[in-house]
Amino acid sequence: MLLRNATIATMVVGRPFGLIPNGAVSLEDGRIAWVGAEEDLPDALRELPQRDLGGRLVTPALIDCHTHVVHGGNRAAEFELRLRGASYEEVARAGGGIVSTVRATRAASEDDLVATALPRVDALIAEGLTTIEIKSGYGLDIDTELRMLRAARRIAAARPIRVRTSFLGAHAVPGDFDGNADDYIDQICIPALRAAHAEGLADAVDGFCEGIAFSPEQIERVFRSARELGLPPKLHAEQLSNLGGARLAARYGALSADHVEYTTEADAKAMADAGTVAVLLPGAFYTLRESRHPPVAAFRDHGVPMALATDCNPGSSPMTSLLLAMNMGCTLFRMTAEEALAGVTREAARALGLPDCGQIRAGLRADLAIWDVAQPAELAYRIGFNPLAERLFAGAS
Amino acid sequence: MLLRNATIATMVVGRPFGLIPNGAVSLEDGRIAWVGAEEDLPDALRELPQRDLGGRLVTPALIDCHTHVVHGGNRAAEFELRLRGASYEEVARAGGGIVSTVRATRAASEDDLVATALPRVDALIAEGLTTIEIKSGYGLDIDTELRMLRAARRIAAARPIRVRTSFLGAHAVPGDFDGNADDYIDQICIPALRAAHAEGLADAVDGFCEGIAFSPEQIERVFRSARELGLPPKLHAEQLSNLGGARLAARYGALSADHVEYTTEADAKAMADAGTVAVLLPGAFYTLRESRHPPVAAFRDHGVPMALATDCNPGSSPMTSLLLAMNMGCTLFRMTAEEALAGVTREAARALGLPDCGQIRAGLRADLAIWDVAQPAELAYRIGFNPLAERLFAGAS
Ligand SMILES: [Zn+2]
Ligand SMILES: [Zn+2]
Repeated sequence: MLLRNATIATMVVGRPFGLIPNGAVSLEDGRIAWVGAEEDLPDALRELPQRDLGGRLVTPALIDCHTHVVHGGNRAAEFELRLRGASYEEVARAGGGIVSTVRATRAASEDDLVATALPRVDALIAEGLTTIEIKSGYGLDIDTELRMLRAARRIAAARPIRVRTSFLGAHAVPGDFDGNADDYIDQICIPALRAAHAEGLADAVDGFCEGIAFSPEQIERVFRSARELGLPPKLHAEQLSNLGGARLAARYGALSADHVEYTTEADAKAMADAGTVAVLLPGAFYTLRESRHPPVAAFRDHGVPMALATDCNPGSSPMTSLLLAMNMGCTLFRMTAEEALAGVTREAARALGLPDCGQIRAGLRADLAIWDVAQPAELAYRIGFNPLAERLFAGAS
Repeated sequence: MLLRNATIATMVVGRPFGLIPNGAVSLEDGRIAWVGAEEDLPDALRELPQRDLGGRLVTPALIDCHTHVVHGGNRAAEFELRLRGASYEEVARAGGGIVSTVRATRAASEDDLVATALPRVDALIAEGLTTIEIKSGYGLDIDTELRMLRAARRIAAARPIRVRTSFLGAHAVPGDFDGNADDYIDQICIPALRAAHAEGLADAVDGFCEGIAFSPEQIERVFRSARELGLPPKLHAEQLSNLGGARLAARYGALSADHVEYTTEADAKAMADAGTVAVLLPGAFYTLRESRHPPVAAFRDHGVPMALATDCNPGSSPMTSLLLAMNMGCTLFRMTAEEALAGVTREAARALGLPDCGQIRAGLRADLAIWDVAQPAELAYRIGFNPLAERLFAGAS
C-alpha cells in the first residue's frame, strides 16, 4: 500500500520533526518499505494500491513508555477528601494512599485487572498509541506482582497493541515489612522478579528510589538481580529529592531514569554518557503541584534523550492522554512541540529498548498515526482535543 | 420514559452533589417529570417504559458558559515559536498574537467559521455537553462581529445543542484604532452591538476590562448600551490586574465576571450581593503559567456562585474539554470535586441566565449525562479520560 499526498513527520533526526511536506510512505508486510518526497517516488511504487491522505499529517504511532495502567480501584474519594482539606493522617485513616491501591489490586482477579485496565488502554489507543509499557508494583507480594504482569500480557492479546512489561516489585514497602525494606527486597522482591522472569513476564526491571521508598543500595541489589537475569533496568529517580538514583541508573546502563525533577547537570552528563533516557512525567508534576522542574535545558545541552509519558496511575497521575502529556511537557516543562512529539515516539521507543519503531524509516514497523491537522506542532498545542483520523498497527487499521 | 437503578447527582443544593444513591428519573416531553429514590417512585410511574442504568451515574448535562469556539485559524506555530524562545516582539513580527486570529477570522467565510468550530463543539458534546456559550470578538469590525454571531447561531442548527451568544466587540482594540479605544467603542463596538441586537444575534454583552484592552469607563459605555437594549452584561475581569472590573460588573447586575484571579474579598462581597457568578477559567491560567489564584475561599465564604468553563480560544486556552477544566479547577484552584461539577452544571446555567437547566429537578429540561462511573468525584479526578455513556438532549439521545 502507498500512502500519498501526506505531510510526514518522520521524526528522523535532521530537520525539524524530520518533516517531509509532500510525502509518501509505502508499506509492505507490516513494515515501512519506502518514505520520501512524492517527487522522488520510485516508479515501481507508483503501481501500488494508493490512498490519498489529502495533505493530512502522518507521524509514528504514539508510545507510552511509563504507565501503571494495570491496578485495582481508584482514588477519587481520596482526591475529594484532600480537596475538602483532610490532612495526610485523615486520608490515611480513611484508608487512602498507595496502600488502598495495593489492597484493591490484591483483591482483584486477573480478569478484573484486565477489564479495568482496558478502558484506560482504549483511551490511549484512541489517540494513536500502538505500544505501551505497563508496570507491576501494586501487589508487593509474589502472587499479585505476577498476576499484574499476566494481566499486562493479556492486554496485548485483547487489543492490537504491543505491551512491554516492567517488574516494579521495589515500588513501596508493604505494611507487613514496615521498617524492614531490606527483608522485603530479599524475601519478596527478588524472588518475585525471578519468578516473573521464569514465566517470561518481565521485559525490564524498575524501582522507586526515594526517601519514602527504597535507598540506592536496595535498588542496586534489585539491579544486580536484573543483570544476572539479563533484564534491562529503569528507575523512578529524583522525583522528590536527589538520592543519586539517576547516576545509579546510568551506572547500570539503564534504559531510562524517570521523573528526574531533582536531577543535576552532573547527573545529566552521566545519563548522556550511558545513553539513559530521561522520561519526563508532567502529569504527576501537575497533580502533585510540584514546583521543581526537570533540567530540560541541561538534558538538551548534554544530549540526554527526553521521552514523555502519562505515568497513568491512580494516585499521582490518573491520566490517560499522551496528547495532554505532550501539551504539559511544553506548557509546564518548556519542551518544544518537536521535543514533545519525539518524546512520545522516537525517544519513548528508545526508553523501551525498541529499535524497530518510533520513527518513519524504511525497515521499521508500520506503526503510524494519521491526523486531521496541517502541522505537527498542533498535536502539542491543543488541550483535550483528539485529531486522530486513523491508526495503523503493523500496517493494519 | 423512566431511567431506573441510577446514582443521581441532581446538583440540587442540600446534600453533597444532591446525591440520590438508588434513584430514578422520569422524562416527559423533553422535561424531567419526577426524580427521587426508587423506593419513593409513585405507582403511576412504574407503568412507564423503563431503562435500567445498572447503577450508572446520572448528572445534569454539561454546560460550557465561556467559549470563543468560533474563530479563524490556530496559533500552533506561535506556540512553537514561543517554546523555542522567541520574544514577544519576534512573535508579533512573525504575525502572531490576537491580531493573527483577527486576521484569520476576518478572512473566513461564515461557512468556514461554522466548519472549523464544529470539531471543537463535537469534542465538547462527546463529553456530555448540551449548552454552550459562544462569543464574538475576533472581528473587531461590524461585518465580522456579526458573521461570528451568525456562525454561532448556525451551530445550534447543525448539532443537537443550545447556543447562547455573547457580543464581545470590546475584546481588543484593532490596529486601525490603535490609541483610539474610545473611537473604536463609539464607531464600531456600539454600532455592531445595535446591529447584532436588531438581528437577534446577541443573548448577552461581554467585554475585556484590562490594561491591554478597555478601561472600566469604556466598558461602562458598552454596558449602558446593553442596558438600553435589555441585554444582560458579563465581563472578562481581573485576569491580569485589578481595575475594578468585577465591581463594575456587579454594579450592572452582570450575569458573571470571568477569570477574576485578581479579584479581592471586597469585590467578592459585591458580586455576592449582585448575584454575579464568578466564572473560573483554569485553562487560561494553566496556559499562561499564571501564579495568582482566584480567591476561591472568599467566593465560597461570601456565597459567590462559582462556574467553570474552557475559555476555548486559540491563544490562551486552546482547550475543548470540560472534564479537564473540572480537574484543573480542583488541582490548580483547589475547588472541591462537587464545586467543579456544580461549576459546569448548576452555576454555569446561572452564569448564562438559564433557570431551566443545570440541575435534575422536576420541570427542568431533560438535558442529562449518563456516565460509566460509580461516584461523581470520579469526573473531576481523572485526567484526559471520558467516561460518558450517553447524553440526553431534551430527553433525546
Ligand atoms: Zn511511575
Ligand atoms: Zn474569554
